[in-house]
Amino acid sequence: MDKKERYERLLNNINQYNSGEIGITRVAYTGVEQACTHAFMRMCKAEMMEIRMDPCGNIIARRDGKIKGLPPVVIGSHLDTVYQGGKYDGIVGVTAALEVIKRLNDKKIETDHPIEIISFACEESSRFGVSTIGSKAMAGLINKEKYRFLTDRDGISMEKAFSLCALDFNSIEQSSRINEQFKAFFELHIEQGPVLVNNKKKIGIVTGIAAPARFLIRIFGKASHSGTTPMNMRSDALLGASEIALELEKVAKLEQAHETVATVGVLDVFSGAMNVVPGEVEIKVDIRSTSIPSRERVIEHLYKTISSIKDDRKLNIESKEISVEEPVLLSTDLMEHLKDICEEKQLSYQFMQSGAGHDAMNMTRLGPVGLIFIPSVDGLSHHPDEFTEMDDILIGIDVLEEAVLQNAIAIQEFL
Amino acid sequence: MDKKERYERLLNNINQYNSGEIGITRVAYTGVEQACTHAFMRMCKAEMMEIRMDPCGNIIARRDGKIKGLPPVVIGSHLDTVYQGGKYDGIVGVTAALEVIKRLNDKKIETDHPIEIISFACEESSRFGVSTIGSKAMAGLINKEKYRFLTDRDGISMEKAFSLCALDFNSIEQSSRINEQFKAFFELHIEQGPVLVNNKKKIGIVTGIAAPARFLIRIFGKASHSGTTPMNMRSDALLGASEIALELEKVAKLEQAHETVATVGVLDVFSGAMNVVPGEVEIKVDIRSTSIPSRERVIEHLYKTISSIKDDRKLNIESKEISVEEPVLLSTDLMEHLKDICEEKQLSYQFMQSGAGHDAMNMTRLGPVGLIFIPSVDGLSHHPDEFTEMDDILIGIDVLEEAVLQNAIAIQEFL
Repeated sequence: MDKKERYERLLNNINQYNSGEIGITRVAYTGVEQACTHAFMRMCKAEMMEIRMDPCGNIIARRDGKIKGLPPVVIGSHLDTVYQGGKYDGIVGVTAALEVIKRLNDKKIETDHPIEIISFACEESSRFGVSTIGSKAMAGLINKEKYRFLTDRDGISMEKAFSLCALDFNSIEQSSRINEQFKAFFELHIEQGPVLVNNKKKIGIVTGIAAPARFLIRIFGKASHSGTTPMNMRSDALLGASEIALELEKVAKLEQAHETVATVGVLDVFSGAMNVVPGEVEIKVDIRSTSIPSRERVIEHLYKTISSIKDDRKLNIESKEISVEEPVLLSTDLMEHLKDICEEKQLSYQFMQSGAGHDAMNMTRLGPVGLIFIPSVDGLSHHPDEFTEMDDILIGIDVLEEAVLQNAIAIQEFL
Repeated sequence: MDKKERYERLLNNINQYNSGEIGITRVAYTGVEQACTHAFMRMCKAEMMEIRMDPCGNIIARRDGKIKGLPPVVIGSHLDTVYQGGKYDGIVGVTAALEVIKRLNDKKIETDHPIEIISFACEESSRFGVSTIGSKAMAGLINKEKYRFLTDRDGISMEKAFSLCALDFNSIEQSSRINEQFKAFFELHIEQGPVLVNNKKKIGIVTGIAAPARFLIRIFGKASHSGTTPMNMRSDALLGASEIALELEKVAKLEQAHETVATVGVLDVFSGAMNVVPGEVEIKVDIRSTSIPSRERVIEHLYKTISSIKDDRKLNIESKEISVEEPVLLSTDLMEHLKDICEEKQLSYQFMQSGAGHDAMNMTRLGPVGLIFIPSVDGLSHHPDEFTEMDDILIGIDVLEEAVLQNAIAIQEFL
């Protein structure tokens, strides 16, 4: 059995744990997800790893190093999915980590530093509206009293969901490892966007994770009869919203060098009718960049547009920040490391930012982080049709293996 | 009691018939509307008019003329309202007609031509989705088999609603008067728009009624992650829709001389989420003008915009005509007549089109039609806050009285 066949079997094995009919549904803290988690622990044990589950449900599997007391090199991602998700998002990262361990075991390589695999609990926000719970808990970022009562779509609270998995919500803070330092943290993840496929690159070396700034904008014009109100006597809220959407596109395109993006994803007309000039429109805006100055320029232009439209179109416009999160920059040392590996292996690669959040984001609190992207066909993710070529995953694993290996050798050996 | 007080009492009398708590709800073919209708018949009878109700529920009240066999001068509008409507839309026209008769009776004026008041049944489309049923029936424009099964929001069919009013739906075609000719038809109506108030005019002389051309446009882009999809790799359906809305505004403004208007009143994003680039958007477009060439130019620009956006934004766009109705031009003779009256009375006036439909539209099949608008405060109609100053209504009635009187005198008397 070659490496490709072995890896494919492992991936399929994990994806047998599925409670849905369309795509993969393996939602955090459900029976099927816990079964999967426990199966993965057994697989790690079979590779002679030491395994434990922390109070938040994170799995930590450890392969000891030769030198006692050195910090671990950690590989992590998640096994949970959204409702009707795909086979790759998160799963590739966890299974790739195990494949790396298998390879080291095959080659009987011992490392100076210990190596850990972490399968993070509840990375997806689809169950409780909050993402990366497991890695947040490990990074000491949990607001226990706020989270306790968050409920899923069936009204089950997070605390209750924990207890159904024999996890003690009250001990969640004990998952924190904030007093430890990792030698390095790596995550291999599908891109979830079209960039690598469009640019025909095999590896994306992530420079930073763009956190969204989100706004709710309410536009108030004057509802009036679409037949009897002359064009120059209208206060059309929808036209105001249209201008904002197009201006956001224009300014974000000017910031392309910073990979800044701006989106109006939600637009509601109250109460839309064919014979009524829209009197009220609500839009939701999402602006992301790893460059704070670039994101600020877009936000500034948004406010300028709002203020000029207010006057020109006789509209009242209220805007409210829903959330403004800080982008996370990743380790430039590890970026260089990954670049060298790609060049040595003669792999096409590019630096890029991540527009979506990842567990890696929280791990920056515990040490240097390297995030490796591999291509997503059609840029699809969180979708039953999510797909990455097996050969592309294998290339990603090769890079990951090399990066882990180089980082798990004690520096003094090079002296 | 002066004329103003008398008229105000009449208007309030009619508006006592109200089944709602907010504004006026006097929906066609309901108990409260029929009670109102019958009350109005008694009021007409008290003015010595001959009254009848046709099979469609139209009230026809007739004041005989001196010369036998001359065609009638007709004044008509409607007493039904939308749900939560106002006190003026339609009602002003019917009550003004009765006030004109009262004045002639007071002054003991006999006319050569008979004068009729018609209170048309079911002008508003709010009950069955079809407007001006009564005047359509009178103009021979009813599609009986199509209308029979139209239902209201409670599932009551039009046929059933007729029978609950002791009207025989099967005889509806007998309401047609298409073999008669009216000497003239006049309707006094609130403007339902802001033009007269903005232009500080007391009288609008309507030149034509702009029928809508309506389109359903479906825009298909590609739903993708709002964080991970670079601006230049998006096919954002909402931005396509925004451009269409703004282009429609631009081109309609160029056609302002023709009073052409274009509106996107409905816009739905499927299925909008803050972190998803919109993949599908549906908009509904309403374009109106009394000038067909002007309306055609707007429609042509709409198609041109669609086709250029398709390419520029990598979108698929489907457009479908929902309805394209023909505008109705009113009698230029009566327009001149009304203008002379305004000038003689030193009233500020303007020619204008009507963007909304009226019973007068169907009456063009039976003779020359004059439609007189009076100001609507804030341009409001179909709304509890609909309001027209009592003095402005009285001015309208003065013009109507004069127009009716001049037209009801046999031409030979001037020879």
